[in-house]
Amino acid sequence: MPSEFDLIRQYFTRPTPSALLGVGDDAALLQISPGMELAVSVDMLVEGRHFAPQDGPGTVGHKSLAVNLSDMAAMGARPRWATLALALPAADEKWLRGFAGGFFGLAGKFGVELIGGDTTRGPLNICIQIMGEVPSGKALRRDGAKAGDEIWVSGVLGTAALALAFRQGRVELDQMEAAACLPALYVPQPRVALGLSLCDIATAAIDVSDGLLADLGHILEQSGVGAEIHFETLPLHEVVRRHIELDAVKNCTLAGGDDYELCFTAPVTRHAELLALSQKLALPLTCIGRIVGGAGLAVLDGKGGPMPVNAKGFDHFA
Amino acid sequence: MPSEFDLIRQYFTRPTPSALLGVGDDAALLQISPGMELAVSVDMLVEGRHFAPQDGPGTVGHKSLAVNLSDMAAMGARPRWATLALALPAADEKWLRGFAGGFFGLAGKFGVELIGGDTTRGPLNICIQIMGEVPSGKALRRDGAKAGDEIWVSGVLGTAALALAFRQGRVELDQMEAAACLPALYVPQPRVALGLSLCDIATAAIDVSDGLLADLGHILEQSGVGAEIHFETLPLHEVVRRHIELDAVKNCTLAGGDDYELCFTAPVTRHAELLALSQKLALPLTCIGRIVGGAGLAVLDGKGGPMPVNAKGFDHFA
Repeated sequence: MPSEFDLIRQYFTRPTPSALLGVGDDAALLQISPGMELAVSVDMLVEGRHFAPQDGPGTVGHKSLAVNLSDMAAMGARPRWATLALALPAADEKWLRGFAGGFFGLAGKFGVELIGGDTTRGPLNICIQIMGEVPSGKALRRDGAKAGDEIWVSGVLGTAALALAFRQGRVELDQMEAAACLPALYVPQPRVALGLSLCDIATAAIDVSDGLLADLGHILEQSGVGAEIHFETLPLHEVVRRHIELDAVKNCTLAGGDDYELCFTAPVTRHAELLALSQKLALPLTCIGRIVGGAGLAVLDGKGGPMPVNAKGFDHFA
Repeated sequence: MPSEFDLIRQYFTRPTPSALLGVGDDAALLQISPGMELAVSVDMLVEGRHFAPQDGPGTVGHKSLAVNLSDMAAMGARPRWATLALALPAADEKWLRGFAGGFFGLAGKFGVELIGGDTTRGPLNICIQIMGEVPSGKALRRDGAKAGDEIWVSGVLGTAALALAFRQGRVELDQMEAAACLPALYVPQPRVALGLSLCDIATAAIDVSDGLLADLGHILEQSGVGAEIHFETLPLHEVVRRHIELDAVKNCTLAGGDDYELCFTAPVTRHAELLALSQKLALPLTCIGRIVGGAGLAVLDGKGGPMPVNAKGFDHFA
């Protein structure tokens, strides 16, 4: 009967041609490319909080890495290497095989190599650290937004949150609608190519993981500015749009989280360029508002009047 | 009542002058020094396995970082930056304050800066990734030992394992003896200065965490060589030596683990130099045997005859 360490060796040991020294010594050795800074981010995911016990291990493997790649995208960094620390309650070969499949499926898509890690027995816990490279001085940050900049988001907002609300019985969807929304929850797509393309365009960027209002709020706070966004311009999946009159669904779009899209600011002079980039990447980029002086985030309705919101969504639904 | 995130901010946010961008954005940004490779290692520690629920949080904070610094020492790397991911069952201010004290106490001693991390609610889990720098091509590895090399260890062996055996009731010690041994278990000292000094001397190195036989075994396996070590030459704490006739205590020295000393090989021509280095660092360095051709690890008694051991210790005590 294979030990958990045999299983780890079997499922997680892959060639690491880009590392000077990979798995097998006390540490891995990496050469950072000349002219590049190293971007480093870490996320820890716990069963019951970030994923459910019944979630397929392939989707857990995919999503664990995806949320980290999204942090790289938000810095405009090219993800290069990852480490994976796992606590497992038992040596479950089927689960490990599924997890590895999801993890490496996504890693391979982005050229990310697994160069180290650790395994121990304990309640299920997944900790991934991602390391990437970004040209010196070119990283996207949260603190550079300027009054007059336009605010953009990639993709659509609220789909994953709606899927979660459906799964938790808070919103009703028919089978087709649920099937259309669930992939956003289980297999988000990190916007790495977009992040790399924004390096000399965006003045600030963040990935939308907690929710648009909360995450845009971080940009505003660190940049010392305010914002006006127009609710009617938020890009939505057609299923989300179909139910947008419900307050719960409005909340999914503004505060649901789990979107893993990029929210960024850019001078208005770059507007046409960003539309062209959207075409080039085959990824919707939508201008949703503008940075203003002062402080605070105003969400305006179709008539330009303020909607009652806070970082958690609608005040009466907080 | 402060949230766990307020507490984290309070206890774990410290200046990071060596980072281009520290905590607060989607990722930290680091500049790797010219001519240096980046060494990366990660360890995950779980309550009940790596430390006991009743262990003081200060010692848990110290040891969590120490075991990682030991991996840097084993590569001859200078530890520079760390990330810390924590899963906590509750926002326990007293525990966090203690943990932070132990962690930063050791970090400060080695000039290590905490540049990122994550916190989530869940069963207690500590995941630390350590990053260090080593001059290009100079890292100590596990695969360079040559027949004829001498085998060395720093410090003493078996003290932490004896303390653990005492705490678990497997060995009897009097109060003074226990008090002398317990610090090795709770607050190990990573041999970073030694690692840095071995760069152009040692042909292979590893830190002794699983136990001398297991860890030296990794060097032998990766270098494709064998070894003879002389049991009588193993450097021991006086309390360990006093009880060395017990098989359980012999096992502590050979296979107990938790030593966090360095085991390394070096050409015999460097013998005098290593004794001088020992003086300079005020750290015992003891030659315990020799690398031979072939395979396998022989432990010889005082008369030069083989003792019955395997990687777990004595065959009859496995």
